[in-house]
This record gives sequence, structure tokens and C-alpha cells, in this order.
Amino acid sequence: MREDELLQRIRRDHGGEPPAGVIIPPGDDCALVRPSGDVLLSVDQLIEGRHFDAETDADAVGRKAMARAISDIAAMAGAPLCSLVAARLRPGLARGEALSDAVKRWGERFACPVVGGDIATAEGPEALTVTVLGTPHPSRGAVRRDGAGDGQLVCVTGSIGASFESGYHLSFVPRIDTGCALADRFGASLTAMIDISDGLGIDAGRLARASGVRIELDGKAIPLRDPTRGVRRAVADGEDYELLFAIDFPSLDASVARELGFTVIGRTRPGSGCVLHTSDGDAVEIGAYGWDHGDPEDPSA
Amino acid sequence: MREDELLQRIRRDHGGEPPAGVIIPPGDDCALVRPSGDVLLSVDQLIEGRHFDAETDADAVGRKAMARAISDIAAMAGAPLCSLVAARLRPGLARGEALSDAVKRWGERFACPVVGGDIATAEGPEALTVTVLGTPHPSRGAVRRDGAGDGQLVCVTGSIGASFESGYHLSFVPRIDTGCALADRFGASLTAMIDISDGLGIDAGRLARASGVRIELDGKAIPLRDPTRGVRRAVADGEDYELLFAIDFPSLDASVARELGFTVIGRTRPGSGCVLHTSDGDAVEIGAYGWDHGDPEDPSA
Repeated sequence: MREDELLQRIRRDHGGEPPAGVIIPPGDDCALVRPSGDVLLSVDQLIEGRHFDAETDADAVGRKAMARAISDIAAMAGAPLCSLVAARLRPGLARGEALSDAVKRWGERFACPVVGGDIATAEGPEALTVTVLGTPHPSRGAVRRDGAGDGQLVCVTGSIGASFESGYHLSFVPRIDTGCALADRFGASLTAMIDISDGLGIDAGRLARASGVRIELDGKAIPLRDPTRGVRRAVADGEDYELLFAIDFPSLDASVARELGFTVIGRTRPGSGCVLHTSDGDAVEIGAYGWDHGDPEDPSA
Repeated sequence: MREDELLQRIRRDHGGEPPAGVIIPPGDDCALVRPSGDVLLSVDQLIEGRHFDAETDADAVGRKAMARAISDIAAMAGAPLCSLVAARLRPGLARGEALSDAVKRWGERFACPVVGGDIATAEGPEALTVTVLGTPHPSRGAVRRDGAGDGQLVCVTGSIGASFESGYHLSFVPRIDTGCALADRFGASLTAMIDISDGLGIDAGRLARASGVRIELDGKAIPLRDPTRGVRRAVADGEDYELLFAIDFPSLDASVARELGFTVIGRTRPGSGCVLHTSDGDAVEIGAYGWDHGDPEDPSA
């Protein structure tokens, strides 16, 4: 199959009414969309051998590419609007149709229809690059990562660690609903938020650095997907796509956290960095724990 | 250099006031922008070995990645708003800083500031994927490729052919000003437009197919960058980034075309396809001439 044939096929499949807010659907030089106001924007690359294996089926690859990009919209407490997908495939385009179908289907499923794309062939690992547009929360606005202050609660949705090993990284649902529910419930008291892609350690370090605070985490409180793995490994695993956030409350009724699907795991303090307090009394600086961590101490120790 | 260090450096360079309409600049999970209304969207991949050589300097690569994506906005008679850039680099990130600097600088130069990005490493040819957002023409609206009718003039800006050989593909300026001037001047009579990336032949074929017309081109009228090359090769060269468009006028004063920088090269007719009438009396179907043309006759014959 040639690139032009594949593009035509994708455009044909976009027949019928375009999704709401999409004025010019795929098939022209540009798509045209009508946002209702401000627009959130993010781009993410999903690369074979790093984010998925060559054996991973096309449906799971397309799903992860879309879900991962949308997770950045969730991290701002936004809602997805639409997406653009650039596919880089090996010559021959063997999985071109299957990947295009998958990414289109999962875009619709996640309320983030694909409105534009590009297909190119090249040697080397295949990749899907997804750009997402979103709408900020209507009353709270976009939740940045730099708004946390001293003495606030640090919380995380879901469970942490072993995402790749367990296959969770191919089946997660981006936390759009939870992000929105947190903004509804806490408003301006939801002071900072980030999604955990590279590791709880490194992403907590990013939130702490952006906000100018120190984060202290209680290792016993962190919910682990695989408790046998140990918290020090889990916080470096990455690929969790959970929301890590700060709320400006002195304390919180556990039932509220349960209802919204999160756990209080620490507090902000004056200072910098991110420290994990383990059950054996250690205090470990984990702000560099995760993907791309250069040369840290072995976090599995 | 590690990915996180490179990202931090890029974000540091974005200090100071963000560009107009950019509410949250790079550095968070998403950027936040405030468009004035409808938004044009397009994504393009620039891949080493296909769109540039490994020896091409980083400034020229960054410039072409940005210019090429913006050319899709020009093709709709729009104006650029902002961009996102995903860089795929080889391990070691040798040219990471230089490429990031270049793409940022050319984004500013072309009024399309970079508001978000992603950096990843992988083996194989390096690539820059640029997503652009734009604003449609305020009175004419977005010019699609499917609006041409029978009996209209077919026109092209600038010159065609030998773009790669001459180096023009690394130095062109996207035709934003001309696209806008055409919409100002002709309004609804500017019925269809496309930019020439894959070849005048194949792109004229796309406009003809989308509009449901046949395009007949006068080979003698087509302005060539390198006349020694011959028109049959030039229409298959691609990488021109000129605008090809139809206007609903029976004829046009040559001074108008000169003033706006375009040439009348043919007419639309009932039917389908794109035919080139050569000076030796041949009529050649060229709607498949260009990049990704499968197995055409040799266009250099």
C-alpha cells in the first residue's frame, strides 16, 4: 500500500457527519475546528521499543498513543477536544491500516476525534506522535504544576508501579473524569497537578521544583499495583498515567478521597526536592527517580 | 545531555513574557492558548534522508520543519497562531540544542511561536514533527481544496521544480502573505487552493479529485525554477511549497497576477484528472506525478 492510498482510505472512513466542533474534517491541507474558548495543547511521541514492543498488537498501540496524550489534558483538569496523529512506519506500511483504525477508534472512544494526520515511512522503530487539543475546566480553569504552596496535602489517584510489567500501560483510561471531578470539588484549593508518566519520583520532583516547595512522601501510604515490588522501585517505574496533585487542606476525610479515587500520600514543606520516608525509617531523595534519571542510586536496592 | 536537561534548557529559554494569546507557555503538561475564533490544524513530519540530508545544518532543518508545516496554513489562506514540536533524536541528543534553538527561532520569525514539545531518542533517521495552529482568513474563511468549478482559471505562485537540487526547499518562505492577499482580492471567487509539497502533478490531481473537475495545464505557461530541466520533470519534483489555486474568472489581466506573484497556468474542465499539454503537442496525464507515485511512466522522458 502507498502512503496516498492509505491517506485516502483514512479520509473515506471519515465520511458522514464530522464530530461536533469540527468544521473541516481530515482530507484538506488543514482541519478547521471551533473551540469554545481557550485551548489546551500537548504533543507526545509513542516509540516502538520504548513505549511498546514490536509484538504489541496495533489496537493496543493506537490506544496507548491516544490515551497517553490525553493524560496530559487530564493533568490540567481539562477535557479533550480533538487530536492530530503523525504515523512513522517502516517502508511497506504493513500495519498502517490497523494502526490508523486503532488510533481513530480510540480517539472517538476517548472523546478526542482525530481531525488530521500525516503518514511517513522511514527505517528504525515505528512511532505515533499524537497532538491533543483540550478545553480547560470551565470554572477552575487549567490546573498548572506550579501552584502548590507550603503545608498542603499531596495526593495520587489509583496505584503506582509495575505498569509495564502488568500490561496496565496498554489498558489504562486517562483520568479525565477524575481530573474534572477534583476541580469541581476543590476549585482553587486544587493548587497543582501533573500526570505521572516518567515515575512518581521524577514527576513529584517536577511539581516540587515548579511550585518551589519540598514534597515529603509517606512510603506506607503509597498505593502499589504490585506490593511485592516495593515502594522504592514502584516510584521509579513510570508509565502510571495517574494524577499527582496538591490540595490546600489541613486534612481530609478519608471518605472523600475514596469517593474520588485518590489517596493522600504526603505533604508539601518549605524547601526543595522530593523525599520518600520508608517504613524502615530511611528518608530517600527520589526527585530524580524514573525514566531518564541519568545515574541515580539503584532505586531497587 | 539527558532529555530532561534539554527540556529544562528549552523551558528556561522561554522565560520572559509569553507571546500574545499564549496563557501557559511551555513547561507544564499542556500549553494554554487563546484563539480568536476557529482554529486551523495541521501536522507534518520532517524526516532525515527524505526531507533533509544528515549533513544539513540544524538551522536549516529547524527552518524547513517549521516552514513546511506553516505552508499548510497558507494553503487555506490562513495565518499562523502557534506550534508544537516533537523531536526524535538519536541517543546522545548530539544536535538536540541546535535543533531546538532553530525551530524556536524560526517559529518566532514566521509568527508561529513554539508553545509545546516532546523530545525522545530512538535509532534510525532523526525527525521533527511540527503541529501548527492557525486562524482562517477573517472575511473569506478557510479556502478548501474541493471548491473549484468548471471553467475556472488554474494558477500557481512562484516557480516549480528543482527545489531539492537548488536548495530552495531549505530557504523558502511559506506563502502566508500571498494566500491572504489572494483571499483579500478574490474573496469567494478564490474557489480552491492547495500547497504543492509532493509535486505539481500529484497535488493538482488532488485538487481536481476533491473538486470533481478536470485540470488542463499549459506546459509553456508553467514557470520553471530551472528551465533546462523540462516541465515534465518539474511537475513531478515536489518540495515547491507554492500555492496552486482556482479562481472563478473568465480571464485575468496579467498585471494583477504579476502584482500578487502568480501565473495563470491552466483551466478547469468537466471531467477528472490533470492533463499537461506540452509544447510538442502531447497531452500527458500527470495527476499521479510526484512523490509516492507508485509506478508511473518516467516523467523525465
